[in-house]
Amino acid sequence: MSSHSLEVPAQSIGLVSPQKVLIEKPLTLACGTVLPSHELVFETYGTLNSDKSNAILICHALSGDHHAAGFYEDDSKPGWWDHHIGPGKSMDSDRFFIVSVNNIGSCFGSTGPTSINPETGTLWGADFPSLRARDWVESQKLLMEYLGINCWAAVIGGSLGGMQAMRWSLEHPDKLLNAVVIASSMKLSAQNIAFNEIARRAIKSDPDFCDGNYLQEGKAPLHGLALARMIGHVTYLSDEALGKKFGRELASGDFVDGTEDPIEFQIESYLNYQGDKFSSNFDANSYILITRMLDYFDLSREYNNSPVEAFERAQCKFLLISFSSDWRFSPKRSQEIADALITAGKNVSYAAIDSNQGHDAFLLPNSRYQAALGNYLSRVADQLEAAQ
Amino acid sequence: MSSHSLEVPAQSIGLVSPQKVLIEKPLTLACGTVLPSHELVFETYGTLNSDKSNAILICHALSGDHHAAGFYEDDSKPGWWDHHIGPGKSMDSDRFFIVSVNNIGSCFGSTGPTSINPETGTLWGADFPSLRARDWVESQKLLMEYLGINCWAAVIGGSLGGMQAMRWSLEHPDKLLNAVVIASSMKLSAQNIAFNEIARRAIKSDPDFCDGNYLQEGKAPLHGLALARMIGHVTYLSDEALGKKFGRELASGDFVDGTEDPIEFQIESYLNYQGDKFSSNFDANSYILITRMLDYFDLSREYNNSPVEAFERAQCKFLLISFSSDWRFSPKRSQEIADALITAGKNVSYAAIDSNQGHDAFLLPNSRYQAALGNYLSRVADQLEAAQ
Repeated sequence: MSSHSLEVPAQSIGLVSPQKVLIEKPLTLACGTVLPSHELVFETYGTLNSDKSNAILICHALSGDHHAAGFYEDDSKPGWWDHHIGPGKSMDSDRFFIVSVNNIGSCFGSTGPTSINPETGTLWGADFPSLRARDWVESQKLLMEYLGINCWAAVIGGSLGGMQAMRWSLEHPDKLLNAVVIASSMKLSAQNIAFNEIARRAIKSDPDFCDGNYLQEGKAPLHGLALARMIGHVTYLSDEALGKKFGRELASGDFVDGTEDPIEFQIESYLNYQGDKFSSNFDANSYILITRMLDYFDLSREYNNSPVEAFERAQCKFLLISFSSDWRFSPKRSQEIADALITAGKNVSYAAIDSNQGHDAFLLPNSRYQAALGNYLSRVADQLEAAQ
Repeated sequence: MSSHSLEVPAQSIGLVSPQKVLIEKPLTLACGTVLPSHELVFETYGTLNSDKSNAILICHALSGDHHAAGFYEDDSKPGWWDHHIGPGKSMDSDRFFIVSVNNIGSCFGSTGPTSINPETGTLWGADFPSLRARDWVESQKLLMEYLGINCWAAVIGGSLGGMQAMRWSLEHPDKLLNAVVIASSMKLSAQNIAFNEIARRAIKSDPDFCDGNYLQEGKAPLHGLALARMIGHVTYLSDEALGKKFGRELASGDFVDGTEDPIEFQIESYLNYQGDKFSSNFDANSYILITRMLDYFDLSREYNNSPVEAFERAQCKFLLISFSSDWRFSPKRSQEIADALITAGKNVSYAAIDSNQGHDAFLLPNSRYQAALGNYLSRVADQLEAAQ
């Protein structure tokens, strides 16, 4: 790979390419719908060891995909967790075999609203069945079987990804040794749901949404999806981070009295750009589906609403990580998880990281965050290697 | 009034009716446009004393109007600050003459985008000139002259209303004895501007916005304005208040596995209702205009960006009030105002009120808030009455 024309930084996983698998086992979703088969796109980094004990599963969040690390040819932008994944990094690809999958219902190649429903021969679109985080877990379990892995060394995710990691610990307690739950929550608050509902309404009120049949109509609710993303984006960032990055700087115009010059702040220009960029890359039905999945998630709903009772099922160890300025899933939410795990008698480590980056911190480089995760996983690797 | 059929609570100002005045003096706006005349709708409560020294001006915020207290016939809902205004209340109508005006650019009867431009004979609509908080102050100054008042006992406002009170203290330092600045800020943060810009984009992307000419086209961007309000509404409330009021309660559907029942949370139903109610009552061009006014406000822009230098002009006393869970204009913003005033050598009282109601707290009953305002204004009334 190093001979390739793309300049690859040191400690990078280098060039990667996604794989696609057709899972031919039926998947019964929580809503009752059965997918007779489904496709999953995924990437792997590192090498699976001989006893297949060093595999890590990465669970993406709302808008994530399978491209978590390394580079594609002709694309200088690395995967979204590249600072975590690679030789000697916090998820050390010299020691672990790391699996990153695009989940069903999303729009980056795995079966979802933009796929053809094989039973009807037409696009799923708005008819794609309702999903729960557990459906992602069950689909990931089928991928696990396909890869011949019997137990994950760790399941790792941030935000909605952390919910999947927690769900893994309850649904398949003997299939993971560690769950790493980053900037997550056992359930969304009314405020969280409110922002998601506004995003959905923004999409649905766009006339080009066509009741979800926009692809069939050759349209796309670009404005609605851009708005949805803008709302999300502001809530992922902290007031402080936005202030430091943009303040009240102007992108155009001036505050001269006596003129009607149009004035645009940098933050407006930035947000509009981010919204438009996202809406040209993401599917609106997927956005609705996955925000609903977030809203529906409630770790302990079927455990008498008792997180302690829920976590009593878990057998793995836990690492929790939160970020001080995250107001979407605040450190208080992680503290609640820690409290429930401790009361349930589980082995839990908790790193409360000081950061001004808001919820987005889980996706951004931060030396203390990387050290907390790296030190934890390094001990996991030590134990695995000692047992070999 | 007590003989009227409407049941009026004790301590209520009782039945009120708005007045309308045509201000025939020209008003030069900050943007350079001159309004040769403009109409203002206002209400008054209490009686102006003989030396006209007991007048209070109330400045409304983004979506406010002139109906701050008392009842209209056939409407059981009192004005928006009724818990503050009335006999024996924090703004005691037995002692003060209280003036509440709908400001220009708004949409409740005063000259604004829904008015006819007398120069063209057509609706102002999107052509209504850009406004600054100081324009509202200058218009209020003309109303003051019309009412024959030479000096306000106090100018009082929350949020954007507080910005007007501060602006009064700089522009007309000899025309007010007290400025009461509630849940306000010397300027918006990037996050504040971001939420306003998303609201504006929601309105502008509604096809029924028609580039602002929806009234002329017989349309209204109801969906866009509803979205704008929903975004605002969530940011006016605290996570805690939303959690206590709605939690994760369902409005319809159920979480039964194996079913596709549509699930709606109470918070979704509530927010959609609030958005729709607002959009049928408010004008979209006014919303754009007034959110811009908020974004543009920067107390010290023309004072070398020094709040201290700005406040050195002020001659009045100040009462600042903030609410602990307000994350739109947090207590930190009020503390900054207090610090600048103290450094400028001004007389300032600051009540930091504990409340879980978010920014909306400035509009809601709260005994400590009412006591802080009431005690302050009671001393003002004592001094005025002693001087008579």
